[in-house]
Amino acid sequence: MSNPNPLALIVGAGSGLSASLARKCAAAGMRVALAARHVGKLDALVAETHARAFPCDVGDPLQVETLFGEIDPPDFVVYNPSYRVRGPFLQLDPAEVQKTLMITAYGGFLVAQATLKRMLPRGHGALFFTGASASVKGFAESAPFAMAKFALRGLAQSLAREFGPKNIHVAHFVIDGGIGRAGDPRAAARGADGMLDPDAIAETYLATYRQHRSAWAFEVDLRPWVEKF
Amino acid sequence: MSNPNPLALIVGAGSGLSASLARKCAAAGMRVALAARHVGKLDALVAETHARAFPCDVGDPLQVETLFGEIDPPDFVVYNPSYRVRGPFLQLDPAEVQKTLMITAYGGFLVAQATLKRMLPRGHGALFFTGASASVKGFAESAPFAMAKFALRGLAQSLAREFGPKNIHVAHFVIDGGIGRAGDPRAAARGADGMLDPDAIAETYLATYRQHRSAWAFEVDLRPWVEKF
Amino acid sequence: MSNPNPLALIVGAGSGLSASLARKCAAAGMRVALAARHVGKLDALVAETHARAFPCDVGDPLQVETLFGEIDPPDFVVYNPSYRVRGPFLQLDPAEVQKTLMITAYGGFLVAQATLKRMLPRGHGALFFTGASASVKGFAESAPFAMAKFALRGLAQSLAREFGPKNIHVAHFVIDGGIGRAGDPRAAARGADGMLDPDAIAETYLATYRQHRSAWAFEVDLRPWVEKF
Amino acid sequence: MSNPNPLALIVGAGSGLSASLARKCAAAGMRVALAARHVGKLDALVAETHARAFPCDVGDPLQVETLFGEIDPPDFVVYNPSYRVRGPFLQLDPAEVQKTLMITAYGGFLVAQATLKRMLPRGHGALFFTGASASVKGFAESAPFAMAKFALRGLAQSLAREFGPKNIHVAHFVIDGGIGRAGDPRAAARGADGMLDPDAIAETYLATYRQHRSAWAFEVDLRPWVEKF
Repeated sequence: MSNPNPLALIVGAGSGLSASLARKCAAAGMRVALAARHVGKLDALVAETHARAFPCDVGDPLQVETLFGEIDPPDFVVYNPSYRVRGPFLQLDPAEVQKTLMITAYGGFLVAQATLKRMLPRGHGALFFTGASASVKGFAESAPFAMAKFALRGLAQSLAREFGPKNIHVAHFVIDGGIGRAGDPRAAARGADGMLDPDAIAETYLATYRQHRSAWAFEVDLRPWVEKF
Repeated sequence: MSNPNPLALIVGAGSGLSASLARKCAAAGMRVALAARHVGKLDALVAETHARAFPCDVGDPLQVETLFGEIDPPDFVVYNPSYRVRGPFLQLDPAEVQKTLMITAYGGFLVAQATLKRMLPRGHGALFFTGASASVKGFAESAPFAMAKFALRGLAQSLAREFGPKNIHVAHFVIDGGIGRAGDPRAAARGADGMLDPDAIAETYLATYRQHRSAWAFEVDLRPWVEKF
Repeated sequence: MSNPNPLALIVGAGSGLSASLARKCAAAGMRVALAARHVGKLDALVAETHARAFPCDVGDPLQVETLFGEIDPPDFVVYNPSYRVRGPFLQLDPAEVQKTLMITAYGGFLVAQATLKRMLPRGHGALFFTGASASVKGFAESAPFAMAKFALRGLAQSLAREFGPKNIHVAHFVIDGGIGRAGDPRAAARGADGMLDPDAIAETYLATYRQHRSAWAFEVDLRPWVEKF
Repeated sequence: MSNPNPLALIVGAGSGLSASLARKCAAAGMRVALAARHVGKLDALVAETHARAFPCDVGDPLQVETLFGEIDPPDFVVYNPSYRVRGPFLQLDPAEVQKTLMITAYGGFLVAQATLKRMLPRGHGALFFTGASASVKGFAESAPFAMAKFALRGLAQSLAREFGPKNIHVAHFVIDGGIGRAGDPRAAARGADGMLDPDAIAETYLATYRQHRSAWAFEVDLRPWVEKF
């Protein structure tokens, strides 16, 4: 990437992973744009990373277009948003299932299309998708998330095949475990480093972003050392 | 299945596979219900199989509930509907992509929920999903179909894990090739038996339906002998 | 298959699945040949199925050639042999690991080559491989079996791609659970039909053998309704 | 890794990837040991990286034990050896198929066992395996390589599950394309960066080696941007 001051767009910016990505991108000299449904709680991160934050409901085509209209063409886009409903299948609310599909998968399509429209004319870029255990395994009582994360993986595969040869690096990450910092109380029962530290995940995203195009990764699975799989 | 006169519901009844399934179910002594967006062209099949036909847009929760309200609880349900838009990714119409997801994947959720609500109290049943090559491979210029078929597979996996131990046989079929009868002009270039004959596919669905529960298949891939894969 | 009196060769004939296959093939009017390391205990099965039994160490090229020299060209061959050593990885005996590879995987190669040499000139046939959970998932403390069953699956995939278009049906079955008849004491804790009944597995093999070549299955996974996966 | 001067052992050291790994490990301050069937041609690499080179036929348990007896306990081991025979299946020499299994897969077992015996008491380490397209897809006319590379992947999966929770990082890389430097004549038809540059592959291995254990990758697939998949 010869761009002297590339722009990273982190979508779904309310998560711990997004914050880690924003910090690492900023530390690497990139400009950072953050998109989230609610930007109010991003103030500290914005200040820390000199980022700009934009409100965006990723399931709405107009809001996605508006977002991209307000920023420069991005060099690096990460799609993190996910919404899910779970529980016994017969009790699932169809409207919540649809919302799961719209935010977790269809939003990925919308952001991908807006991203690639801007990367293609410039001839380079990277578009990464954040998956989960549910991307490759449909668990009981979690059909909606499996549907949406499987769909996002299908999208990423298709885009890698279409846009790889156009010099756009498309990659998909299977985050196979809970995300939490060392002090996260949920991690206590798992022992040291039993949850995926968002900084550690972000480190691998950045290393993948820096890969030479002669050896691009499409898929990387990440899990804590103690995770069953 | 000890039910003396089981009911088979074939959803997405306008396809050649659905017609073959209807005939085989009828020949096996089952009552047959057909659901399709447009039932007008089903007259001949209805007459031949003594089926009942119901109009249903599978992406609409109300229409799916109406459908199930008009039929007896089914013993065997096959979900075949698929809609797709394809072409260069940047030219895809977002509304068409959403429609692809709604009919091919979300409709599967709606039909599954209505089906399982009725199978679970009766303690048995079979729910099969028809996939495609795109269920396991995201092809270039076909992201929407990959998204939807990946999602449907995730749904099927999740349901198999949740409802198998409740004596409901959930299975997913990867139809890896074009479907067409021997005389189909598209098959000419492929040579003899170069497209999947819908009767041959239906034969495997019925054999899977008849499996003893000690050895249920979850996933079967079917392709013509000459198909590249 | 127009052959009036086809020959089925069941390799690894000492298992319950092989016995079920032999009975179903005989009941379907096929001649049956059985190959096993030790044929002494096959007397009852031989009598019941009018089969012929041949001693064969499948890991030995000469013994495999001898076997095929003593029988007519087979129409249907099933490769069942498996040997395994398991336990903490550091305690595994390398000689036992090599034996696991030789019998479970290399024997599959030898039998496949001898089989296909005879099927190819006749222009038809079916060659099926029996896999296990370990064919698609490498479990802790079971590396040798995973190595061998993964290898057998790789062999089957390669053969399906090379010989499908030559009218030879190659298929691979993932038997995902313990095999045992209803009265098997190991099944007690699992409840009714909690182990794969060998007759039920064999039923699916025969249904797959009878598939029309326009819709051949390559891979089928089979598990008991209550099995976790 | 707090070890001040870790030892990297590169097995199968005659390949371009091994040379790149040796250089990157040396540049990162590691001591380097090289093992290869023939060490004669390693002189330049040994001089450049201050490595020690050891002759070793990896399919021979005694030679593998001898190798590990001559070096300190390694912190980082990469298994690269592969041997293959290919061509029409019926023309394959069984002895060559066995050799393919022994070097590509069984050698991986032997090296893994020797490695883990030494890493486990020290409580840390990384063991990486180099796979290929054939690790996940069995191509026509290439059954032996598919068998061996599938087997190696099964080994790696099993080891990751057994030794991850013991603080040993086991990873498997699917190298999906031809390896060659920019000037490689085989790359001419593929255009710029059309083959995997071994330095680029090695870069990802090193980044994976440096991952924090809260987010370890098990599998990474790498291919050139223009590669079909």
